[in-house]
Amino acid sequence: MSLPARPTYLDCDTGIDDSLALAYLLATPAARLVGIGTVSGNTDATQAARNTLDLCGLAGRDDIPVAIGRTDFLARPYDGGAPHVHGANGIGDVELPRSEGPVDARSAAQLLIDLSREHAGELRIVAIGPLTNLAVALEADPTLPERVADITIMGGAALVPGNISPVAEANIGNDPEAAARVIAADWDVTLVPLDVTMANPFEESHRAELLASDSPIARAVGEALDFYFDFYVPEYGRRMSALHDPLAAAISTGGVIPSLAPRVPVSVDATDGPGRGQTIADLRGQRVAPRDHDGVRTRVVLEAEGDVARHLVDLVTARA
Amino acid sequence: MSLPARPTYLDCDTGIDDSLALAYLLATPAARLVGIGTVSGNTDATQAARNTLDLCGLAGRDDIPVAIGRTDFLARPYDGGAPHVHGANGIGDVELPRSEGPVDARSAAQLLIDLSREHAGELRIVAIGPLTNLAVALEADPTLPERVADITIMGGAALVPGNISPVAEANIGNDPEAAARVIAADWDVTLVPLDVTMANPFEESHRAELLASDSPIARAVGEALDFYFDFYVPEYGRRMSALHDPLAAAISTGGVIPSLAPRVPVSVDATDGPGRGQTIADLRGQRVAPRDHDGVRTRVVLEAEGDVARHLVDLVTARA
Repeated sequence: MSLPARPTYLDCDTGIDDSLALAYLLATPAARLVGIGTVSGNTDATQAARNTLDLCGLAGRDDIPVAIGRTDFLARPYDGGAPHVHGANGIGDVELPRSEGPVDARSAAQLLIDLSREHAGELRIVAIGPLTNLAVALEADPTLPERVADITIMGGAALVPGNISPVAEANIGNDPEAAARVIAADWDVTLVPLDVTMANPFEESHRAELLASDSPIARAVGEALDFYFDFYVPEYGRRMSALHDPLAAAISTGGVIPSLAPRVPVSVDATDGPGRGQTIADLRGQRVAPRDHDGVRTRVVLEAEGDVARHLVDLVTARA
Repeated sequence: MSLPARPTYLDCDTGIDDSLALAYLLATPAARLVGIGTVSGNTDATQAARNTLDLCGLAGRDDIPVAIGRTDFLARPYDGGAPHVHGANGIGDVELPRSEGPVDARSAAQLLIDLSREHAGELRIVAIGPLTNLAVALEADPTLPERVADITIMGGAALVPGNISPVAEANIGNDPEAAARVIAADWDVTLVPLDVTMANPFEESHRAELLASDSPIARAVGEALDFYFDFYVPEYGRRMSALHDPLAAAISTGGVIPSLAPRVPVSVDATDGPGRGQTIADLRGQRVAPRDHDGVRTRVVLEAEGDVARHLVDLVTARA
């Protein structure tokens, strides 16, 4: 891996698959995590920060600032998350050793703004929860996009069903008002929707490699995935999982390369109708060949190359 | 073909592909057209009736009642149709001999209601335009579904892009309020969306067979398709067309069999948001195997067996 280590801000709702994404971002030489903000989604923002601190502690990385972000979404209150998917504590009811590290006193939005000044032009954002904190940061500082290199978002569903409604994916569907603002902002967005995350599996054999690792965070993630694998049995017909957040993280670093990712207009349905929370990507006219729309800075990842699980496991289980 | 000839009401916005569907329904022994209503869509309802009468005249079927339906949609006025797709007169600017047959004095909705009483329990509906007339008929007579055997609708897009917006198909998108009511009514609906119509091509070789036919209506449809084929060049990369309305007609008769058509809840986005006009089919949880939802009477056709164009051409060019 010869890519430079990009200063990276992670916004997350940790979350079992967030945990694997975090372990990956801590392990990859292509990213340097300079701050983490939490948001409600899979669990509430405070619990997500607890999980994040404890996972960072397991990796010996108490130095990374972790700031608690918004508990409630822009237009609606947090509604209890997804304990049937992620367990009551967000990480499959695994009990982690409590980290000594303190919570950063700033809000997640303020942490992001501060980091964007400290790493102006260099900062990369990886957003793997609802986009509430990012919308708050954009509201507080509309110049934020000028100082951000790029933003990779796990969210949405283009030509596949949603996962919290027939058309809405959870990250976008939990806060469509925020997602609409973040995706409409003037920066380079890579949207990693269910189209590609559901197609990239993580199997029991991969989980076994995590459990057999010398790395405490790898083992913890392997344990948490036990719960997550149960949830996916009705979807896939066996114990395994999709790779939502980890795939977005791996695409952000360049570790996984999108093989089909047209730049097309994307809007977010923020109505109260049956399409609320849907990402509407204009994928008309792509039959003969992929086509980027002029002036569009949002690419929608529909396919990715290579063995994503292999890439993740190799990095997460590698000795430092 | 050993299927019984079902009494069939056709609701259409004739339309080049409507013309092929009409020629097919006039030719197939599996259907007996007992009435036709027109609606605005590809062209306005009055022009659609003109085209329909003239096509029926070419087939020697001036006896079939043709009633003019609604020009304007339930919530919005007709906006001029799709002359770039169907030509200024709706049939690719082909000039047909004028039929002697009169327009039926009833509205399309009244014709449908009358036919449902005359053929109670037997009547089949094939709807290949906006669903305005059917919604008006349901409003006028809520018992209509009790007397209808089944209804096949060309419309919507489930897991593929729309054709008048990123997510809306023209028939549904022109009158979402009507579509919502018709699909929600208590009858057996077969929805034939772009997912399957775009995947079933009609090629120059098929058009050549129509042009070489002894049948005047087959030749007229072949001529009209010349205009339609030009429209599809950017989509397919060559002169050809999709089979929207003809496929719905062929599925209604049993001439073409759906090979994947789960019964799932379908709602229609009738908001003013970016998803307006979208059919939202709940296709979650179908990965392992197709699954019908209990009590749902709407099936969404995602795949169809066999060579659809061949079936259409064989019937439309056959000598009576």
